[in-house]
Amino acid sequence: MKTIKENREFLKGGDWDAWDRTETDQRKKIPMPDLQKPYDQGATLIGLIAPEDMTVGRRSLFDIIQKRRSRRKFTEQALNLEELSYLLWATQGVNEKNQRLRTAPSGGARHPFETYLYVQRVDGLKAGLYRYLPLDHKLLLLSEDHNFAEQIADACCGQDFAGEGAVTFIWTTIPYRTEWRYDTLSHKVIALDAGHLCQNLYLACESINCGTCAIGAYDQEKIDALIHVDGQEEFTIYVAPVGKIE
Amino acid sequence: MKTIKENREFLKGGDWDAWDRTETDQRKKIPMPDLQKPYDQGATLIGLIAPEDMTVGRRSLFDIIQKRRSRRKFTEQALNLEELSYLLWATQGVNEKNQRLRTAPSGGARHPFETYLYVQRVDGLKAGLYRYLPLDHKLLLLSEDHNFAEQIADACCGQDFAGEGAVTFIWTTIPYRTEWRYDTLSHKVIALDAGHLCQNLYLACESINCGTCAIGAYDQEKIDALIHVDGQEEFTIYVAPVGKIE
Repeated sequence: MKTIKENREFLKGGDWDAWDRTETDQRKKIPMPDLQKPYDQGATLIGLIAPEDMTVGRRSLFDIIQKRRSRRKFTEQALNLEELSYLLWATQGVNEKNQRLRTAPSGGARHPFETYLYVQRVDGLKAGLYRYLPLDHKLLLLSEDHNFAEQIADACCGQDFAGEGAVTFIWTTIPYRTEWRYDTLSHKVIALDAGHLCQNLYLACESINCGTCAIGAYDQEKIDALIHVDGQEEFTIYVAPVGKIE
Repeated sequence: MKTIKENREFLKGGDWDAWDRTETDQRKKIPMPDLQKPYDQGATLIGLIAPEDMTVGRRSLFDIIQKRRSRRKFTEQALNLEELSYLLWATQGVNEKNQRLRTAPSGGARHPFETYLYVQRVDGLKAGLYRYLPLDHKLLLLSEDHNFAEQIADACCGQDFAGEGAVTFIWTTIPYRTEWRYDTLSHKVIALDAGHLCQNLYLACESINCGTCAIGAYDQEKIDALIHVDGQEEFTIYVAPVGKIE
């Protein structure tokens, strides 16, 4: 267990002079890692509503920031596919196709995240586990109805609301995407970036009468096992259940 | 220098079972630390525009997320006091006075941040260094015109745009606010929280024809010296120059 004093160092600026002299993988001309995890060509893909066809999210930013709360109580109401499409796009989507610019910023444009969804109540989608493909703006079906709401709550240290959303966002990081460029200085950058995208979820939820409360207290091995990631090259970094609110 | 493997551990869930058994300062009944750094009663305070009197920020969230970019080029135009008030409120302000709820979420509602501003071009404000008092929604004048744009750029590893904003946000953390509750598990939480508030800055900027690009590459000692914080109990965690855009 590290001490508080040691952990505080993690939040500091880091030695960028040393980084300037480091032979990073990028400087070694090792090819840039994929910005989206590959998937089997025979997999089941589900189309989402394109940003240009969305009609949701038209409340003003001022109004949304004024009303933002952390919300742990959800109704039984389902989200529709446009609402889910909007939340995915707002958190990790592409907002400029030519340069693949994204809706949330990431240090060095590395975007070291994947979005897994446990869907319980979304109109037109089978319950189950999905992964978002941000560059395609599609969903990849990983497995149908695990019915693992209780397992999510257990993996989140017994916080029942973690499994009660209409959909639960489970973000992983693939840290090498950032390490390729920033080497040992990557990890504070990755944590900040995860905060960026999660704040977009808070605000986008508030704009469609949904709510969320992000969860940092989880059991790494349990949650990684639920979504079948290896816990080293890819592992869960943040969790956020989303549901309709009163 | 820590290895990549060691640093990755920082991004993981942490041992919350051990935390459950830890005698944190909160569990020892040590009084909760202040959520706003104290200031001399004789200090110069500057009133800001109250949220209920603001008229800015009325563009839709969808539109803002669609247009969000990282922006490093600013015009010479000044911000007005309402715009600055809005950016401060959106990032760290109070949106519900009775419970002191805030516009950006923070793990355990600890809000372990202070906001320093280097003001260069804000109508009605002298150039200089200020601190935001979120619970009072006022500015505290720390010192008039240091003229330290070049020093900010130098402290940000020579990134000139760091000193070219109409105003530069320099966020510090006072980590004990979170450590009081979460002990050694605080530091990932703090980094995520810093990402939350910074994303609100990105979006709020975009809604008033301003731009920002947050900076993680800075020299800790240099930037802490500029704002006169001790580098241990309070230190810089993130920097963001803001200016008007074309």
